[in-house]
Amino acid sequence: MKLKEIAALINGRIEGNEELEIKGIGKIETAGSEEITFIANSKYEKFYKTTSASAIVISEELELSPVRDGISLVRVSDPYSSFLTLLDIFENEKENSLTGISEYVCKGKNTKLGEDLYLAGFVSIGDDCTIGDRSKIYSNTTIENNCVIGSDCRIYPNVTIYRNCIIGNNVTIHSGTVIGSDGFGFAKQDDGTYKKIPQTGIVLIEDNVEIGSNCSIDRATMGETKICKGVKLDNQIQIAHNVVIGEDTVIAAQVGIAGSAKIGKRCMIGGQSGLVGHIEICDDVIIGASVGVSKSIDKPGIYTGYRVKPHREDLKTEVGIRNIPKLEERIKSLENKISK
Amino acid sequence: MKLKEIAALINGRIEGNEELEIKGIGKIETAGSEEITFIANSKYEKFYKTTSASAIVISEELELSPVRDGISLVRVSDPYSSFLTLLDIFENEKENSLTGISEYVCKGKNTKLGEDLYLAGFVSIGDDCTIGDRSKIYSNTTIENNCVIGSDCRIYPNVTIYRNCIIGNNVTIHSGTVIGSDGFGFAKQDDGTYKKIPQTGIVLIEDNVEIGSNCSIDRATMGETKICKGVKLDNQIQIAHNVVIGEDTVIAAQVGIAGSAKIGKRCMIGGQSGLVGHIEICDDVIIGASVGVSKSIDKPGIYTGYRVKPHREDLKTEVGIRNIPKLEERIKSLENKISK
Amino acid sequence: MKLKEIAALINGRIEGNEELEIKGIGKIETAGSEEITFIANSKYEKFYKTTSASAIVISEELELSPVRDGISLVRVSDPYSSFLTLLDIFENEKENSLTGISEYVCKGKNTKLGEDLYLAGFVSIGDDCTIGDRSKIYSNTTIENNCVIGSDCRIYPNVTIYRNCIIGNNVTIHSGTVIGSDGFGFAKQDDGTYKKIPQTGIVLIEDNVEIGSNCSIDRATMGETKICKGVKLDNQIQIAHNVVIGEDTVIAAQVGIAGSAKIGKRCMIGGQSGLVGHIEICDDVIIGASVGVSKSIDKPGIYTGYRVKPHREDLKTEVGIRNIPKLEERIKSLENKISK
Repeated sequence: MKLKEIAALINGRIEGNEELEIKGIGKIETAGSEEITFIANSKYEKFYKTTSASAIVISEELELSPVRDGISLVRVSDPYSSFLTLLDIFENEKENSLTGISEYVCKGKNTKLGEDLYLAGFVSIGDDCTIGDRSKIYSNTTIENNCVIGSDCRIYPNVTIYRNCIIGNNVTIHSGTVIGSDGFGFAKQDDGTYKKIPQTGIVLIEDNVEIGSNCSIDRATMGETKICKGVKLDNQIQIAHNVVIGEDTVIAAQVGIAGSAKIGKRCMIGGQSGLVGHIEICDDVIIGASVGVSKSIDKPGIYTGYRVKPHREDLKTEVGIRNIPKLEERIKSLENKISK
Repeated sequence: MKLKEIAALINGRIEGNEELEIKGIGKIETAGSEEITFIANSKYEKFYKTTSASAIVISEELELSPVRDGISLVRVSDPYSSFLTLLDIFENEKENSLTGISEYVCKGKNTKLGEDLYLAGFVSIGDDCTIGDRSKIYSNTTIENNCVIGSDCRIYPNVTIYRNCIIGNNVTIHSGTVIGSDGFGFAKQDDGTYKKIPQTGIVLIEDNVEIGSNCSIDRATMGETKICKGVKLDNQIQIAHNVVIGEDTVIAAQVGIAGSAKIGKRCMIGGQSGLVGHIEICDDVIIGASVGVSKSIDKPGIYTGYRVKPHREDLKTEVGIRNIPKLEERIKSLENKISK
Repeated sequence: MKLKEIAALINGRIEGNEELEIKGIGKIETAGSEEITFIANSKYEKFYKTTSASAIVISEELELSPVRDGISLVRVSDPYSSFLTLLDIFENEKENSLTGISEYVCKGKNTKLGEDLYLAGFVSIGDDCTIGDRSKIYSNTTIENNCVIGSDCRIYPNVTIYRNCIIGNNVTIHSGTVIGSDGFGFAKQDDGTYKKIPQTGIVLIEDNVEIGSNCSIDRATMGETKICKGVKLDNQIQIAHNVVIGEDTVIAAQVGIAGSAKIGKRCMIGGQSGLVGHIEICDDVIIGASVGVSKSIDKPGIYTGYRVKPHREDLKTEVGIRNIPKLEERIKSLENKISK
């Protein structure tokens, strides 16, 4: 791309060679020749002297000296945000150019494929599925019978989607994630053994959801496990049968949510926290990392602790514990006074 | 299936059209025409007026009014249990009809395949394996050399079973699970680096075990890591080398069990709990969620806490912590009295 | 292998038949005929009477009686260490003999393959990759475009390596592990939705690293997520974008490390511990199991607790909590005395 084309994308003003050919993008310390980089923070100004980049996205105001002739500048109001836009464009261009269907694809009966798909090697798609336009399914991924996958999805390698599940548009699923495995439901028998409760529901994932790597989202016993639109899940998250995650909720890695829990909209849950089953978390709740949530939360706010508490209360408890030795000293001193 | 055939399976008595053709099964709120549903609980009676289902499994006693002519009833003593039986039959029938071997299967030398197998696309089975009758191995699953898989197993997509492992009959393994990866054993060298201790044992999984998605069960250093019959494991469970899990023990998601720990029979372990290595848990122990178990347990009962304690003791500790501010007040009051 | 060949490998002295043909290796309780075993510990001496093994690795000093004629001995100074060497040789020999490229491999353009490779069935390697000599890539593993894999690597089944990642020499990656999935980076928009921050960095894994099963190592937002040489990771570990793990650090299962955290050299981290983002852990730190590390650590030592503390301090806190009921009694006694 020429520098003037790039400048147009981010509404920037060029100081330098607008015909410059830009082939990539990088951090200022490591960007190479024919690449564009950015300075958003005065901390990085020092690299201006040494960078090999051919162009820099920079704020309107920043004065650089001494000026290096070989480097063109693109002046914008917010260099970081503009740079992200460029990153996005460069990355997406590469990935969007992926298209075509490998010769090594297993496709079942009555499965309808959209246009401009990418189906990589060793992808297996069952019977009666529908795959939307422009979706990309990477190698060694399996989609079982009767699934619906929307358009503009990216399903990375080694993902598994079990039968009957429904995935919306513009959904990204990273490698190793499993959608629709059986919920963990067993009925104890009189002889101490367990009998499987059939798991006949589905997983429904709405539009614009992103799911990290090695997550597990179980199908509902009946009905659906539901990930609402805009939800973002990090890696290694466990979501049990019949859970509902509300719109635009964000969950960090290694969180576990037990069966039939219902999480509100716009919540944030820190890494490694665990939620027991059948509880309800209202909208706009922030749960810290490694929190044990064993009861419903019905007020927005911040919650922390091994046994979940409102954050302030949890801090007080922590201070109380740290004060125990002082309490002991005070008791000792009282005892001494009394015995005198 | 005709309604009279269904009624026979669950020992039910029909009120209505016994020639009715039933094509599916669903919850009363969502079941469609030609489907059967159930009412096990008076809470759901209200849906009788509106359901689109053609038939309902219902208790002997329950009176419905006003009677809807278009809906046939199947009277049984325990509607929920009867409905589960039906669910199971409907689900299994679909899955049991899966049979045949894909053209895209890699099969090694001297590997013996049972009858009525289902081997899906991109399944790789190594040399010297044995696969029992009627087992189903889904796409993109790998079974390495010299494994034995019993009959009536279901091994879902993207599972890996390393060399020499032994899987019993009627074992279900969900996607992404890894059986027989190397135990985590390294010997520290004088220069601070680590040398791998070869992991030459196996994993042995007995009959009727179910294992969730994305679990890791390491092979033994020597000998075997053993999952005894009837054990049920949820998703994302880590089982280290040489662990033994006793019969009919049930373990919730994201639990980690370190090397050479031995868990008794009929135990239950809550989600995200961790057990250190080389300890022994006796039969019939219930461990809560997020419990840190750093020592052996030799008495049945319930155990909880960040540092494991008998549950009652743990609750007392929790109450004690909550009382710290009150103790402080009482000390202050004593100090005031004394200083007077 | 003949016994005299084995003895030479471990610098041992034979008492018995040096022409004995040895076909395998096992524990003394279970080793079969034509197998070699070891006694490193007097506890195992009792099995000498009953073992079916044909040869035993044993210390120079140990006297066995009554002597069994059918069993040859190999005398060494350290039987356990010698036995590990043998285990390693037997295991490696089998695995090293794996070589060749399956007919079912997808290989992209401009990808350079080293010599004596093993590429199993349904391996997918993208464009512009380089795979070093003698590396083994097991079935159903995917390596995306522009990756570099060193020599003598073992990448087990169902592994995913995303685009542009770099793996050193002699690296072992177990099944289900995902290298280079997107970092968890989203910018909150004014309407409450999140916009993805493109993740354009890579993962760099240096030489002699071993990574367990079902781990997730995210690519950097920009730059690299780096696993330095000699690091050993257990199963189900989550490593976020831009994390650096120093040389010879060892991390147990189910640990989670948040974005941009930097771990020093020769650290040990216990199972299920969690580290927040942007902190720094100095060299030679030992962190216990299930520890919540929310701040940097700048002194070597042992650290434990739900809220990380130096281990001694954590133990004191624990004792303090256990003493609360006694404090209460002492307060009560003081109150009684005062009221008198």
